Amino acid sequence: MISGNTKLIAHLGYPTATFKAPMIYNPYFAKHGIDAVVVPMGCRPQQYAAFLPLVFKLSNIHGALVTMPHKVTTVALLDEISTTVKVAGACNAVRLGADGKLIGDMFDGEGFVRGVSRKGRPLVGARVLVVGCGGVGSAIAASLAKAGVGELAIFDPDAGSMSGLAERLRANYPALAIGVGSKDPVGFDVIVNATPLGMKDGDPLPVDVTRLEPRTFVGEVVMKQEITPFLAAARARGCDYQPGIDMLFEQIPAYLEFFGFRSCAADELRAVATLSY
Amino acid sequence: MISGNTKLIAHLGYPTATFKAPMIYNPYFAKHGIDAVVVPMGCRPQQYAAFLPLVFKLSNIHGALVTMPHKVTTVALLDEISTTVKVAGACNAVRLGADGKLIGDMFDGEGFVRGVSRKGRPLVGARVLVVGCGGVGSAIAASLAKAGVGELAIFDPDAGSMSGLAERLRANYPALAIGVGSKDPVGFDVIVNATPLGMKDGDPLPVDVTRLEPRTFVGEVVMKQEITPFLAAARARGCDYQPGIDMLFEQIPAYLEFFGFRSCAADELRAVATLSY
Repeated sequence: MISGNTKLIAHLGYPTATFKAPMIYNPYFAKHGIDAVVVPMGCRPQQYAAFLPLVFKLSNIHGALVTMPHKVTTVALLDEISTTVKVAGACNAVRLGADGKLIGDMFDGEGFVRGVSRKGRPLVGARVLVVGCGGVGSAIAASLAKAGVGELAIFDPDAGSMSGLAERLRANYPALAIGVGSKDPVGFDVIVNATPLGMKDGDPLPVDVTRLEPRTFVGEVVMKQEITPFLAAARARGCDYQPGIDMLFEQIPAYLEFFGFRSCAADELRAVATLSY
Repeated sequence: MISGNTKLIAHLGYPTATFKAPMIYNPYFAKHGIDAVVVPMGCRPQQYAAFLPLVFKLSNIHGALVTMPHKVTTVALLDEISTTVKVAGACNAVRLGADGKLIGDMFDGEGFVRGVSRKGRPLVGARVLVVGCGGVGSAIAASLAKAGVGELAIFDPDAGSMSGLAERLRANYPALAIGVGSKDPVGFDVIVNATPLGMKDGDPLPVDVTRLEPRTFVGEVVMKQEITPFLAAARARGCDYQPGIDMLFEQIPAYLEFFGFRSCAADELRAVATLSY
């Protein structure tokens, strides 16, 4: 039940019709008696730079979930950003510091990392290939670097995106081995599709699955269906895998910790969410 | 259940701890399947003039409930205001017009008027005395004028407040008989205490109750207790009366109509509200 004492978490994005977070967080808050509420606010890009700081002046604001199209523009509006935000070049979580400062972090990639780890695949020292260096690929690469992978290979047909991500990785993780420019899947412990391939019928697969080794763990960001054509091909070759939707649920415990709320396992969030997939 | 399609009603005021509207509207919306939510937003005065227009640029905004300390400053921020807003000099409801215009109205006094009418006391042609010409007194006077009272007497120890209200009434209701400067209760059909007298123990009564006629209906705005010392004295003289809290519930149907939602009787709102008095 919302009252004047309820902590407000602004869910900032535009348009709002496809927002999922309210239907996950709010039932969880209700279940545990956490007096907080996630409220969609459909802020258009033209107003965002003015609106974000004002929302954080509200006396009952606690934080913000940031989604499309504001993840990149948010970065310049904050007082403190994590290394993950620097590497990702984007931010999807903002909270108010005790001194009124705006503190940002990025959990899209953290969701991927937590999901893989919970499936029993260690990432420390692992060799990982990220295909796609856009927003989600950069976020995943940032979190993989933070998680301590041994080698991080990145690929994107857009050379500028690829070299930009490589540069941000090198600047923030100088000791990390970084490979650039190949998407040959041979030799990797983990491969993730961070491209939109699989969203449309007839899309090519993101890597040459005929060269995929059965020992390689395959991750997906596309959420159009649980088993995308890429995951189906990987599964057919004997690979373990992680569907795209797992990133969504696995990142929420990280958000809860960031906001200072009681956290939980992702499975509990799936159970309380009033969503269907 | 809040989703990205839920209509957002911003409850704007500061501080928010004593807000009551969320606990009345939200259970009512839930009961009737109205996909809307009242969300407290603790906007401080320094940010208000910037914040209000931006909130109304949100794609999912539907309206705003405005409370202290913003009722007066809101007036200058709107595109269209009702006559009641003009007379009251304050606004407690804003909605988005189809053309993006901000449309304001004021229902504090409407709550008083509806409550009196529902108690079987006709106001058309009635002689009414409003004691107190501050925010709530001006709002009540504005709604009484709109309701068609025959004579409206106003009193305030602050001559400026009293003459200001008289001037706004004359400008907007030139045919209305207006009395200024006496609080003698003799001869009125309805008398309302719109002063803060009764908030503190030992406050004097707002009028000389020894001159109160039993036929006079007595209204109260103080909500500290249901039967204030003034109402107790009036009841002892045989007067019918209306407690302050009735104004709150009686104005909500007017808000619901203003926002274009299914409306109801005030009694239904009392029944669903998760408030205790």
